Amino acid sequence: VSFRQVSIIGVGLLGGSLGLALKRHDSGITVVGIGHRDTTLKTAKQRGAVDRFTVDVAEGVRGSDLVVLATPVGLFGRMMQQAAPKLADGCLVTDVGSTKQAVLDSVLPHVPDGCRFVGSHPLAGSEARGIDAATVDLYDNALVLVTPTDASGDGDVERVENLWQTVGARTQRIDAPLHDRLLAQTSHLPHLVASALVEALGPDAASLVSSGFLDTTRIASGDPGMWRDIFVTNRDQVLKSIEQFEGVLADAKRALAAEDAEAIRALLQRAKTRRDALLRDR
Amino acid sequence: VSFRQVSIIGVGLLGGSLGLALKRHDSGITVVGIGHRDTTLKTAKQRGAVDRFTVDVAEGVRGSDLVVLATPVGLFGRMMQQAAPKLADGCLVTDVGSTKQAVLDSVLPHVPDGCRFVGSHPLAGSEARGIDAATVDLYDNALVLVTPTDASGDGDVERVENLWQTVGARTQRIDAPLHDRLLAQTSHLPHLVASALVEALGPDAASLVSSGFLDTTRIASGDPGMWRDIFVTNRDQVLKSIEQFEGVLADAKRALAAEDAEAIRALLQRAKTRRDALLRDR
Repeated sequence: VSFRQVSIIGVGLLGGSLGLALKRHDSGITVVGIGHRDTTLKTAKQRGAVDRFTVDVAEGVRGSDLVVLATPVGLFGRMMQQAAPKLADGCLVTDVGSTKQAVLDSVLPHVPDGCRFVGSHPLAGSEARGIDAATVDLYDNALVLVTPTDASGDGDVERVENLWQTVGARTQRIDAPLHDRLLAQTSHLPHLVASALVEALGPDAASLVSSGFLDTTRIASGDPGMWRDIFVTNRDQVLKSIEQFEGVLADAKRALAAEDAEAIRALLQRAKTRRDALLRDR
Repeated sequence: VSFRQVSIIGVGLLGGSLGLALKRHDSGITVVGIGHRDTTLKTAKQRGAVDRFTVDVAEGVRGSDLVVLATPVGLFGRMMQQAAPKLADGCLVTDVGSTKQAVLDSVLPHVPDGCRFVGSHPLAGSEARGIDAATVDLYDNALVLVTPTDASGDGDVERVENLWQTVGARTQRIDAPLHDRLLAQTSHLPHLVASALVEALGPDAASLVSSGFLDTTRIASGDPGMWRDIFVTNRDQVLKSIEQFEGVLADAKRALAAEDAEAIRALLQRAKTRRDALLRDR
């Protein structure tokens, strides 16, 4: 990595794993952990994810070449505002948030002249959360979506791509609006649907759930605060995805009500063929 | 097992695994495989799931104490009709179908006097299918739902329970209408929802699916023919479950459209708490 000192704001699953991986791949780097809970920060240090830590955001970013926002996305604006006065000249800022346009809208106004922001979204993580769930290989072979901004130059984007490649990830550039439209379909809608499946389950059905139900709803065990922020910050695209999905479900319902067994089979066959291909092409 | 000879009609994942497990747990038993494809039956014999096989249903059930229907549920009635003339007096018949009232409706009219039918539904299996996916331990610690009928006596039900316990499963009695109502929620609706999620995915989003999407839609890779039969034979309960689910999703959509972040968080929190409990209580 071309960074001497990296500050990570939020040392949970994603931030903590990044610290662990950076320390493994670049022994010369200094990682500063910033958080609001002392116990979390101490654990991060004990686990070797950070070299030192502080609860003071401005203090924590001082002298760093790179700052990574890794709290829930709803806090990014406030964190950036607090960090801004002490950001070093030439400092690069990135994030690990699951939505991108709202992140640009909340973060960019607080980025001082002489600093640059480039967004990142690692498609990594799980329904687990917190520093205890962090692992040194979370980003191994993961895909990280990198979103340039109007203000960022090619060099800035490349430095962020290098960061992720250093910890084993693949990178792909994508602009923020397209990112948000596609992630609404691949991630945000499935999460809402999984939660709705659990919510719709009658109390007397709980004892009969099998591995199929548990796998289908695994992501519903994700952190509610983090996911609330994702839904709120990608509202319009999530609403469009819900409507698209409702249309497909309504078609299936109509076919079933009409006892159109062939239409049902055709839907199931298309879904199977496509899902098998998704699994194969990963 | 208290059976000397068992005929299994359909030696795919469920039927083949039952044959393998019966042969392991009771070396004295004879298992007869019945199917419509010679290659499948030969593989079943090579794998040790059956002692002998035939494509002739009537021939295959002759002399058996127990007949297990393990084709897709849509074929059960026809299989039973073909088997009936040669069923031994006192023969017990069961099945492995995922719906129960429709199975009773299609099978019971063909069960001759002197024979008994008791339904079974093992909550086992996966999106895989066929004899190649069969395993000797598929039923280890699985839950098998056993549905008595008006004609079956306690002794008949106990013999079917013993069958499943012999191959390592737990059993629970449940009547057919309740079974179908609960399984619509725990299994059939999730399957349809998973298929609809895949169907709703835009072509440009395919390259961005992550493990969350793949897990949520795993069951959509299940066999379309088998699942078509399940939906058609449990149509009314599946339709009710879809409507229940649509109501939950509409509530979430309203909360999101109104930017009611707290209502979104509360839904996600309820779902997480409940799904975590489902996982813990398995």
